[in-house]
Amino acid sequence: MSTYTAPLRDMLFAMREVGGLDAVCALPGHEDTTPDLVEAILEEAARYAGDVLDPLNRQGDTQGARWQDGAVRAADGFAAAYASFCDNGWHGMPAATAWGGQGLPTLVSTAVLEMWKSSNMAFSLCQMLTLGAVEAIAHHGSPELQRRFLPHMVAGRWTGTMNLTEPQAGSDLAALRSRAVPEGDHYRVFGSKIFITWGEHDMAENIVHLVLARLPDAPPGVKGISLFLCPKFLVEADGTLGARNDLACTSIEHKLGIHGSPTASMGFGEKDGAIGYLVGAPHQGLACMFTMMNHARLNVGLEGVGISERAWQHARAYALERVQGKTLRAGSGTIAGHPDVRRMLMDMKARTEAMRALAYFCAGQMDRAARHADAGERTCARTLVDLLIPIVKGWCTDNALHIASDGVQVHGGMGYVEETGAAQYLRDARITTIYEGTTGIQANDLVGRKLARDGGQAMAALVERMDADARRLVESQDAALTQIGHALHSATATLEDGVRWMLENHQAHPARSAAGAVPFLRLAGTVVGGWLSARMAEAATAQLAAGSSDSAFLQAKVATARHFVTHWLVQAPALRDMVVAGADSTLALDDAQL
Amino acid sequence: MSTYTAPLRDMLFAMREVGGLDAVCALPGHEDTTPDLVEAILEEAARYAGDVLDPLNRQGDTQGARWQDGAVRAADGFAAAYASFCDNGWHGMPAATAWGGQGLPTLVSTAVLEMWKSSNMAFSLCQMLTLGAVEAIAHHGSPELQRRFLPHMVAGRWTGTMNLTEPQAGSDLAALRSRAVPEGDHYRVFGSKIFITWGEHDMAENIVHLVLARLPDAPPGVKGISLFLCPKFLVEADGTLGARNDLACTSIEHKLGIHGSPTASMGFGEKDGAIGYLVGAPHQGLACMFTMMNHARLNVGLEGVGISERAWQHARAYALERVQGKTLRAGSGTIAGHPDVRRMLMDMKARTEAMRALAYFCAGQMDRAARHADAGERTCARTLVDLLIPIVKGWCTDNALHIASDGVQVHGGMGYVEETGAAQYLRDARITTIYEGTTGIQANDLVGRKLARDGGQAMAALVERMDADARRLVESQDAALTQIGHALHSATATLEDGVRWMLENHQAHPARSAAGAVPFLRLAGTVVGGWLSARMAEAATAQLAAGSSDSAFLQAKVATARHFVTHWLVQAPALRDMVVAGADSTLALDDAQL
Repeated sequence: MSTYTAPLRDMLFAMREVGGLDAVCALPGHEDTTPDLVEAILEEAARYAGDVLDPLNRQGDTQGARWQDGAVRAADGFAAAYASFCDNGWHGMPAATAWGGQGLPTLVSTAVLEMWKSSNMAFSLCQMLTLGAVEAIAHHGSPELQRRFLPHMVAGRWTGTMNLTEPQAGSDLAALRSRAVPEGDHYRVFGSKIFITWGEHDMAENIVHLVLARLPDAPPGVKGISLFLCPKFLVEADGTLGARNDLACTSIEHKLGIHGSPTASMGFGEKDGAIGYLVGAPHQGLACMFTMMNHARLNVGLEGVGISERAWQHARAYALERVQGKTLRAGSGTIAGHPDVRRMLMDMKARTEAMRALAYFCAGQMDRAARHADAGERTCARTLVDLLIPIVKGWCTDNALHIASDGVQVHGGMGYVEETGAAQYLRDARITTIYEGTTGIQANDLVGRKLARDGGQAMAALVERMDADARRLVESQDAALTQIGHALHSATATLEDGVRWMLENHQAHPARSAAGAVPFLRLAGTVVGGWLSARMAEAATAQLAAGSSDSAFLQAKVATARHFVTHWLVQAPALRDMVVAGADSTLALDDAQL
Repeated sequence: MSTYTAPLRDMLFAMREVGGLDAVCALPGHEDTTPDLVEAILEEAARYAGDVLDPLNRQGDTQGARWQDGAVRAADGFAAAYASFCDNGWHGMPAATAWGGQGLPTLVSTAVLEMWKSSNMAFSLCQMLTLGAVEAIAHHGSPELQRRFLPHMVAGRWTGTMNLTEPQAGSDLAALRSRAVPEGDHYRVFGSKIFITWGEHDMAENIVHLVLARLPDAPPGVKGISLFLCPKFLVEADGTLGARNDLACTSIEHKLGIHGSPTASMGFGEKDGAIGYLVGAPHQGLACMFTMMNHARLNVGLEGVGISERAWQHARAYALERVQGKTLRAGSGTIAGHPDVRRMLMDMKARTEAMRALAYFCAGQMDRAARHADAGERTCARTLVDLLIPIVKGWCTDNALHIASDGVQVHGGMGYVEETGAAQYLRDARITTIYEGTTGIQANDLVGRKLARDGGQAMAALVERMDADARRLVESQDAALTQIGHALHSATATLEDGVRWMLENHQAHPARSAAGAVPFLRLAGTVVGGWLSARMAEAATAQLAAGSSDSAFLQAKVATARHFVTHWLVQAPALRDMVVAGADSTLALDDAQL
């Protein structure tokens, strides 16, 4: 079994060269976040992830969370780790200082969160859900709700959940049936919810459920949904915990992976109704959820990065240790010397680095959108973030499935044996393309909201920016960069083809447009990933030319970008073809012909 | 949960139109295998698979095989099903009549085996391993060994295993250490073996282990390996079972999937040595294993087909039943009306049908190779089979991983819940790219043995045949066929590029050639799959033109082929690029830079 070692050099390189770390640290309000401080935080986090969370990951998988009579026990060791996670300040770190967090740039917290995802994805979900709830309450809750709940939640003493899905509705929130009845200063909530991550457990004193439900006068559909805060234990006026609220965990799911993270079915109002407090205005529940959507989707995309990194480290460790057969590559006596094993390792590495670059680039833009001094720059960054978020979520998780699967393959027969650990990463990764909006939902968001609504302006600006970089690389004196530049230039042209087709067809042929949406998302992710890989190669080449002593690392960056180009960016034309010529066959058959 | 329904129409269509069923039934020795008989057999097998094996599949997964004190109990219901499987004649069906089998064409038994793979892959492995052992003994065993063992094994009363892998050697058979010492008319075998499928269980009276080991005077490497038959219970001269042999199952693996199939670690000769009988000549063990390699690899490729078909049926059933959200496609109120769900369903369907076509085409060629009246035709077919086998194995299993994963995705959040059943197909499928030679090993076999050894002649003949069909389609009066023809013509040209590069580089740059071997295998599989899809579309179009009453089915065949072309065959250029321009980056880094 390998041990997780946070790839600090790669992380810092991506933060600096594509995330714009220096500029982010210079944003108003982040002046105290010096590069030295960032490095120190990352080093501490790396230690915590490697020493505490990674060694627990298998226990979470094999033992899992256990339900009995409505109570859920986390896997052995999780509660103690969670306590130390909170005590060490990791839990609240990404949150605002007003509620006890450290108010760090999203770029920095993103790198730290990646480490939690890599080392123990199931564990990391508890914090992720809690901070999502914190964000919703901080934006939409009354000052009284904020005062009473946020400090505890940021500190991690109380955790948070999101109660969206109902059995009959799935991703279709318009079909929600849970209801809330006014009663004095609060409401009584009734309904059944499923797929509630960390919906019940024994690691915290209280659990704060955010629940989507309908008021009695609510209009039908998504415009009639309100958001309610229902604590597991009621909170008295003096802040102490009172009676148990009328809500219960009725079961937890038996899942393919993330066994350490209990996925609860929740019943609200089996007796008198669960006491809940309205968050935001009536019927505005969906808007409240949307507030946190960008962070939530970035973070699930980041799970794709984190689990891919971990699967890659595990496979690399095995490949560099296992001796088997005569190898063809000089210098390698282990199976890493078999060219096909090396191809898989390079595939994993190149994609993971491109995905990380994309997630960090997006995080850096979120910081600009939040704090840049210039309003125009903020808007510009916000538009870019909105465009990129479905790509980060959809493309990074999609890749993660394949990377984790390749990780199993590198191990050969041992990969199929659970004790080896490689299979867990595949099982854990498999949820990431599903929750927080499936890849299909991300693709519809990308095409419908992010591309079509502004007539393709945001995308055109991104394409122009990418192609300008491509043309600069083509003009470079460096052969590798020139090659990368040509490939990127050609790939951005295929993306433009796809964009043009989508804009032409989205209104006129919505079904055809939707049939091509996921290939389009993959095309966009592939090209953007290629662009950011190219930027890293360019930066590495410049540092090499400037005489950096870290030449092995920097040369590897260039080779890794080349690998992305020659193995992944080359797929752009096929993805474009699927978009522009794939709808006919996709929609050709009647149900009975399937 | 869906119920498996063997896709008899699709199977028969592929058997007739690409497998050459009529010609196979006319081969010397198969005259009794009339088309009516074939249909009757398939219908009976379909009933058995759907009624008996499919309902047991989940029990095998959830309970699995259980080891205690060296004994292994199959999951509840497996032993009874196995008894009825044998009693009904299914077990020995593919075997030669000389030993109690039915001597059916490989094409027919392949279709039947696909049903066992679809309905209960874990269960199917026991028969597969036994018949593999039968093949080895029938080709290389002494008449006495054949007489004593084969009738029982063909009938299924005794099962068979293959003991190749040792912990330190993995796929590298040159590193085997197990040894055999002569003693009178037999040998004493000593050694440890792992990954022995159905190596121990309680479903049969005896288990016949075929074991690779070294004689005392053996040369090193693969030329010093001999094959031994070691029964679990010794067989007396009168055929009755005697004492327990000195071999034991020391544990079984805890695996990602195929839980119903015990994967045993075996210890031979803990005491005096396991009594074993030499099969074939001394030091010729590997040649004996190679005898059954084509069938074994076809059958694992067929697992890719079978599990894909099952995952597809499961996803289709869910998509056609689940109502959620407003759909964009007229006529579909269920999620199958969401174009992206439909895209996934069509992707699954188009690939599965192309894979089945490839497996059946190969099976039909095996029948020609075995029985064609003309020696030249036999040689020709044998050459084609040898070329195709690594493609069938490597490409069909590679696809199966993605198809089973897409099957989970179609289910959304429910797909991640084990009770839904979709996840099992993904877990089960994950072994198929690993055992019986990993995809990397298949690709090296394809490039090194099948392509380079004859200077590309066999491949050139295949490419010429494919391109002739493409050109005929281009000339067709039918718009869909013309479009398919153009795409196929262009794709065969990319395959030719890949072939040329491989032939130029295989000797001079073995590491570069090996770096591109798997992309080359995928390229070959994609193009051959496109070709056979095109042939099915052509046949369907002809039947439609002839006024067939089955127009919905035949139109679906054309649309499915178009989907393969527009979503999969379009990837051929990228795969070619990976082959011809991907080696540099694959091999660029030192171990320390990974």
